[in-house]
Amino acid sequence: MINTETKLQNDLLLRAARQQPTERAPVWLMRQAGRILPEYRAVREKFPNFIEFVKTPERAAEVTIQPVDILGVDAAIIFSDILVIPEAMGLAYEMVEKRGPYFPKTIQTIEDVRKLRVCDGVDDLSYVMEAIKITKKELNNRVPLIGFAGAPFTLFCYMIEGSGSKTFSKAKKMLYTSPEIAHELLQKITDSTIAYLKAQIVAGVDLIQVFDSWAGVLSAVQYEEFSLKYIQQICDAITEVPKTVFAKGAFFALKSMKNLNCEVVGLDWNMDIQESATLLGNKKTLQGNLDPCALYGSFSSISAYTKLMVEEFGDVPFIANLGHGLYPDTDPEKVKCFIEMVKEFSVKK
Amino acid sequence: MINTETKLQNDLLLRAARQQPTERAPVWLMRQAGRILPEYRAVREKFPNFIEFVKTPERAAEVTIQPVDILGVDAAIIFSDILVIPEAMGLAYEMVEKRGPYFPKTIQTIEDVRKLRVCDGVDDLSYVMEAIKITKKELNNRVPLIGFAGAPFTLFCYMIEGSGSKTFSKAKKMLYTSPEIAHELLQKITDSTIAYLKAQIVAGVDLIQVFDSWAGVLSAVQYEEFSLKYIQQICDAITEVPKTVFAKGAFFALKSMKNLNCEVVGLDWNMDIQESATLLGNKKTLQGNLDPCALYGSFSSISAYTKLMVEEFGDVPFIANLGHGLYPDTDPEKVKCFIEMVKEFSVKK
Repeated sequence: MINTETKLQNDLLLRAARQQPTERAPVWLMRQAGRILPEYRAVREKFPNFIEFVKTPERAAEVTIQPVDILGVDAAIIFSDILVIPEAMGLAYEMVEKRGPYFPKTIQTIEDVRKLRVCDGVDDLSYVMEAIKITKKELNNRVPLIGFAGAPFTLFCYMIEGSGSKTFSKAKKMLYTSPEIAHELLQKITDSTIAYLKAQIVAGVDLIQVFDSWAGVLSAVQYEEFSLKYIQQICDAITEVPKTVFAKGAFFALKSMKNLNCEVVGLDWNMDIQESATLLGNKKTLQGNLDPCALYGSFSSISAYTKLMVEEFGDVPFIANLGHGLYPDTDPEKVKCFIEMVKEFSVKK
Repeated sequence: MINTETKLQNDLLLRAARQQPTERAPVWLMRQAGRILPEYRAVREKFPNFIEFVKTPERAAEVTIQPVDILGVDAAIIFSDILVIPEAMGLAYEMVEKRGPYFPKTIQTIEDVRKLRVCDGVDDLSYVMEAIKITKKELNNRVPLIGFAGAPFTLFCYMIEGSGSKTFSKAKKMLYTSPEIAHELLQKITDSTIAYLKAQIVAGVDLIQVFDSWAGVLSAVQYEEFSLKYIQQICDAITEVPKTVFAKGAFFALKSMKNLNCEVVGLDWNMDIQESATLLGNKKTLQGNLDPCALYGSFSSISAYTKLMVEEFGDVPFIANLGHGLYPDTDPEKVKCFIEMVKEFSVKK
């Protein structure tokens, strides 16, 4: 592993994650490399489908760096997709325009689970590693690069359900009818994810984030058993770089996440910042949490909401972000306004 | 208004709502009159579309009573749809098979809002009133009849967005860009809803429930301004019967709902029962909150989860229900098991 961190020109993200002093809060946005940028759409257009785009390291690196140049964020996040893991395990998917991911075959039986492979990050996902290496080279130590993976439960949801869903009732059905199959699958996803994240770190990422996008469909008790347990394994296994866990909608799990071996916890805009800090034992750096819809407002309204958010963090160490990914129809100028306002309002006096 | 309540053979629901002594907890299920019952599907089949079905009082009454006869629930809830209000205000919708509601025209400007009428419950929604009267007659005072409406914010979501959505980002956009248009529309929906619920009470319903299905997309601050404020108006206006407010996903609003002029608060399965009771100042009867997916489990598993739920309520007065509507592929025998287990486990010693 090459430790490039000490050479970073802007290491605000890493210092904030480790609760070291910073001049101001670092800021980046989930889905910053994406459809909001015309420059991204110009690259995206060249590919007949999304998955092919993800698998082209040069282009993935290009769109990863765009928001650093265009928006002025304090970190890049490697452009990829959480569903590359199921695919590397042997479960192919398609990305259907305007509908989202679709798995022609889903996991239903223990035999289905056993046919899946535990993937090796370096070989099975070499295109991601290649994209990371190119990005690191081209970023030239300007800002840190974030690696990521979906939380095992979120990947499980797609692998059973076969597509997005408001309730993920098919996936959840398995938790009630065949918990042993669910656990065997979750363990296999977890082992694959650890290998994948370790490979990302070797390739050069400076921090990793685990996205549990569908955490909110579970009860607190089920969340402990079917999600947090596996996130814990990931956090315990990754010791090389700081870790962020973002469990969307899992307000009920904050109390338990206090004990998670991670530096940063992501919040959505439903969660009260000070209350969350307390539930997390005042031990974590927080990340978030402006409502992405706030960026539809006027510049002065964005400025006011950003100020309010910064004030709500108060003395809690934080990384400014949205409470969810950017919505595709957001005006890039509004995104820039949010970024600039964070930089202005969060300066330490 | 005819007060039939004193003649009810089973008034457990109303006593629980008013925190009066009960022998055991009352139980009913959201979406109990629906696709899980073959008897419902037999009636549904006769109609080319869902809205025509809703507008046929004899058939609406028939499916309203089915779960009382077939499942043994302690209350009926009038079979209807929350979107009858936008329609009565002048905004037509369609129900698209497997996709949900769709509004060919949506509300975008202040002129659009001003073209809408404040509906009169008795005349504009006479088909619902007729269905209530037939149901009351045929129920013959066996159990109470619940009336309902969508919360103004939830109706607003559909009227702006035009269909279901995971984020309702178009509807929320208006809250940030044109809050004054949003408030004018919300007030018009609220006035219509109050008239509608008052008409339902005159027609014979014994309790009303307000469903805020999309509460969870808002931040706590926006929820106060754009949702709770209007629910409060409804609760203050309805004095004739007990009121239940169910704001799905609005865990962050429980503290404020303490001051709402309603007897019952619905909980989803993410919310901790005892914590919610405390946040609500121990002043409300609670309703809920089993995960609908729990009914996919075996009979013994359903029994165990139901027992756990009843124990979690402890001394808190409650009405047993799910934390969300029944999912359509639930086995009616499993639903019966839940109902029977509530009746068994909740007997007061």
